[in-house]
Amino acid sequence: MMVSASAKTRQRPIGIFDSGVGGLTVVRAVRAALPGQDILYLGDTARVPYGSKSPRTVERYSLACQRFLVDRGVELLLVACNTASANALPALAAASTVPVIGAVEPGAETALRVSRSQRIGVIGTLATVRSRAYERAIAARAPSAHVVALPCPLLVPLAEEGWTHGPVAELVARRYLAELFALDRDLDTLLLGCTHYPLLAEELTAAAAELAGRPIAVVDSASAMAAAAVRALGEPAAASGAGGALGVFVTDATRLDELAPRFLGEALTSFEVVDL
Amino acid sequence: MMVSASAKTRQRPIGIFDSGVGGLTVVRAVRAALPGQDILYLGDTARVPYGSKSPRTVERYSLACQRFLVDRGVELLLVACNTASANALPALAAASTVPVIGAVEPGAETALRVSRSQRIGVIGTLATVRSRAYERAIAARAPSAHVVALPCPLLVPLAEEGWTHGPVAELVARRYLAELFALDRDLDTLLLGCTHYPLLAEELTAAAAELAGRPIAVVDSASAMAAAAVRALGEPAAASGAGGALGVFVTDATRLDELAPRFLGEALTSFEVVDL
Repeated sequence: MMVSASAKTRQRPIGIFDSGVGGLTVVRAVRAALPGQDILYLGDTARVPYGSKSPRTVERYSLACQRFLVDRGVELLLVACNTASANALPALAAASTVPVIGAVEPGAETALRVSRSQRIGVIGTLATVRSRAYERAIAARAPSAHVVALPCPLLVPLAEEGWTHGPVAELVARRYLAELFALDRDLDTLLLGCTHYPLLAEELTAAAAELAGRPIAVVDSASAMAAAAVRALGEPAAASGAGGALGVFVTDATRLDELAPRFLGEALTSFEVVDL
Repeated sequence: MMVSASAKTRQRPIGIFDSGVGGLTVVRAVRAALPGQDILYLGDTARVPYGSKSPRTVERYSLACQRFLVDRGVELLLVACNTASANALPALAAASTVPVIGAVEPGAETALRVSRSQRIGVIGTLATVRSRAYERAIAARAPSAHVVALPCPLLVPLAEEGWTHGPVAELVARRYLAELFALDRDLDTLLLGCTHYPLLAEELTAAAAELAGRPIAVVDSASAMAAAAVRALGEPAAASGAGGALGVFVTDATRLDELAPRFLGEALTSFEVVDL
């Protein structure tokens, strides 16, 4: 199943998809780990968000995204979207001819490595939390770990509006995390189970520490996914190279020039609008 | 073009569509005006929201919604979604075999009737505001009227989260309306250019009055659309009847039981999930 790129002069690209632009945080992490790696990114911005939709709809849209990238010859697929990972990974893996890495397993591993008390709070979209995928992934590794999870539907629009700091972000972060800490006063780690949430990490970290009365570790899955990609590729030439190409496809371009840099960490030089 | 239902024993249904559940406020207004009228409602909940998408995507999705309802034999179509009305009405009217009524014209008429100073503030989704449809509709009726418009992307998710009262709603309403009043300190009427916003009317009305230092009239298009439907049908039998049937179709059922009653004002007794 695994394809090694090391013997080839030009490796095949990695494919990364997301419901929107949030997955560009994963692109950023992969480029940091594999500077020479070519990447094709697809954001299904015409149908974003996935997080408020049913598992069936999420699976249908995710399969279309995967098909698009596999048809373009990627050798490995990263499902940056937590909602898609949590609700559609079995279907995606079954339908794919290349290895598929989701966001949930790497995120769960990171949280367990960081947490001392093994009491972990997960926040994500409604569809991610309803799937209980993080609970399952954590229980499979640490059966005695305690996990509480809370959907936070306002955090994605808040991050997209750019209100990532200031009174509204503070108030919303406090309100959601107060609900989370009411489920478990003793958690020591907060797992950001959505690609958008790292933009709000500062406010979430501050609110969590204030509510707990002690520092809370805040982790996300982007860098863990990049590490999993490196392992899957088996010491690729791209790890030491530089200047890998990034091809970006979206299903709708509205506000892309404004939103993409917040997640990618640099301006988008070009993109193509496609119809799935 | 206009079809009168008065001579028939059983009139054909009115079709109403929206990007999601917000358009149920229009269903509610139509049922109040025409209690005996059969209604078919379609909410494109799998692809909601339209408001952050491009005119091209909004037009494509709206045409699919209209086709679905026209194929089911409606005699009149109401485009409850302001984003679809503002971006796709010409394409919808051109493609339809039955009369089509959008949200923008009735909303503009209501605002002009209510405003004394003819200085009107419009809030809506990004796509509605970018279309400048309200400015055009108001200028066509009152060339000297002054209109300012502001996109408020957080209001839809806030209404859907149910945080329609309390500190977050207050703070968000104040922040957006402060931006709007910075564009025109003298406006006397606030037009809610989105089917979701009536749920936040109380906080918006209070914030507007506080910022202006005087009462501000707050209007929306739901009841004006119902009045336009009555005019288009020409004194239908349904006006005095009772017990008209409501058929509800959605493209995704997530949270429907929870969300629909907030907009419809009563529980949904049944619905059908369809694929467009």
